[in-house]
Amino acid sequence: MAALSEFDVIDRYFRRPASSAILGIGDDAALVTAAQGCELAISVDMLVEGRHFETGVDPESLGHKTLAVNLSDMAAMAAKPRWALLAGALPRADAAWLESFARGFFALADAHGVELIGGDTTRGPLNLCVTILGEVPAGRALRRGGARPRDSIWVTGRLGDAALALAHRRGEVELDADELAACTHALMRPEPRVDFALRLRGLATAAIDVSDGLAGDLPHVLRASGVGAEIDIAAMPRSGAMERLLGGEARPTALQCLLAGGDDYELCFTAASENDDAIAARAREGHLAATRIGTIVEGSTLFVRDERRIALSPPRGFAHFAV
Amino acid sequence: MAALSEFDVIDRYFRRPASSAILGIGDDAALVTAAQGCELAISVDMLVEGRHFETGVDPESLGHKTLAVNLSDMAAMAAKPRWALLAGALPRADAAWLESFARGFFALADAHGVELIGGDTTRGPLNLCVTILGEVPAGRALRRGGARPRDSIWVTGRLGDAALALAHRRGEVELDADELAACTHALMRPEPRVDFALRLRGLATAAIDVSDGLAGDLPHVLRASGVGAEIDIAAMPRSGAMERLLGGEARPTALQCLLAGGDDYELCFTAASENDDAIAARAREGHLAATRIGTIVEGSTLFVRDERRIALSPPRGFAHFAV
Repeated sequence: MAALSEFDVIDRYFRRPASSAILGIGDDAALVTAAQGCELAISVDMLVEGRHFETGVDPESLGHKTLAVNLSDMAAMAAKPRWALLAGALPRADAAWLESFARGFFALADAHGVELIGGDTTRGPLNLCVTILGEVPAGRALRRGGARPRDSIWVTGRLGDAALALAHRRGEVELDADELAACTHALMRPEPRVDFALRLRGLATAAIDVSDGLAGDLPHVLRASGVGAEIDIAAMPRSGAMERLLGGEARPTALQCLLAGGDDYELCFTAASENDDAIAARAREGHLAATRIGTIVEGSTLFVRDERRIALSPPRGFAHFAV
Repeated sequence: MAALSEFDVIDRYFRRPASSAILGIGDDAALVTAAQGCELAISVDMLVEGRHFETGVDPESLGHKTLAVNLSDMAAMAAKPRWALLAGALPRADAAWLESFARGFFALADAHGVELIGGDTTRGPLNLCVTILGEVPAGRALRRGGARPRDSIWVTGRLGDAALALAHRRGEVELDADELAACTHALMRPEPRVDFALRLRGLATAAIDVSDGLAGDLPHVLRASGVGAEIDIAAMPRSGAMERLLGGEARPTALQCLLAGGDDYELCFTAASENDDAIAARAREGHLAATRIGTIVEGSTLFVRDERRIALSPPRGFAHFAV
């Protein structure tokens, strides 16, 4: 096969006619306008081979995940994702890999009505960087700083399964074939909670997406809000595999995955406790599990209640440069 | 020195209070609104060690260049740059390197009134990815598709010096110490032509920034506009070093640098020829060289006039995946 130029890669695999953008891929910049009365929410995430995903990972799943982690940031702001830009360094221009990656990326983009409006490709160690832009009515974004004492703390979905998949590969826990498939799906095919997040506008007081583990991410909300929290491990939503492992010898590893595993891409949010029923109802409408796991308290400490109350300080989340 | 976490890196070196953004670094996404009546121009560029810059390059210059290449995209759209997001993979969290990189980055950002509103850092092979957002009054962006036959073709500054610096390092040309310093400055400290580009609104018909060499980039304008071009090598603006090399044995290499060297980050734009004087006047006002190098013609071919007329097809610009 002839070598692909940078422009060929974008044209063949990533360029589509502009739909909602004024100008899409193909000029020095894209042009967009936010809907009347909306602010633009923008964030960027970089995924590096060997750090955020393993060498040889299924490219279609990687395409999904590369966009999913960004959509999850939009969900955490209660912003409706609209446009994405994809920059990638690739060790080589492999047509089959690119087709598969693009298929995974666009399947999720289409499901959320997201248009790819910009790109940059270059040769280099595999690195994928997505910038996402979304719209949120002015003043309605869910920030990290709005949690108040006595607010309920919620999480969507289940926590820790993605980390269990990695722990299994490292030989730290043993999953059976079905459990491994489910946990690997959680790791590689996270479903960003965008639709549910939009239902939380005006109801939640603060939100964050759980990318570095609850014990790593919830403290960002606590610091920004100037509050502490108590969470109850027994209440934390978990899979059958997680439940089984928590009851056995691998409990310490399983607990670590549940609390601080990373790669969950669930929403953690707070809301006044009088809205508990309303939130449960929105979750049912959205066909999504949402579980109340604790309460915001005065102070600045994150307490985790297990057999005994443990103060987690500093948080033990995933830190990219920690030794 | 203690290890720095991802959050420490952003907090210590890149986080500043939000100025013009509604919400800057520190939440799941930033929040901005474009000025009334403006569209948002957005682009992304990824710079990879060993490909776009050499290992061990001065980090302050790299900080400058990382932002400069993005500002250059805004210039090419006649958009006023406002906000940037920086994602970086770093092999290690080296405080001195980060301080120096941030100094170069912010010096240029401050000079252009650009606010850093988002970031992501991770460990990995050195890779820097900037997303830039700018404002342009609705319908006034300079696109690639507006060039018309008989339009004049212009470039700012000088072409080819950055490529000469690289050719010198490869032993293909020999520069004296002063020439090498000047060419290295052109390579590492490009000055994005933002201010001048804003003066071209309503005057230029099409624009692109010259990042892959004129012979690589001008064809994008030609294709988008459905036209051809004739450019005159004798008219192309060049340094004394380039002039000297063009007159000697290294002429083929020098020509390659001038025409297709890459890393110029000058503007190439077209405008109706009756505006030649107006453009020259705007350049003088902006204390910037702007040189008329040729004419848009019917057809689709880029002709380069030297001793004889050469048709350049396909373009010989820098292609990241070409063998």
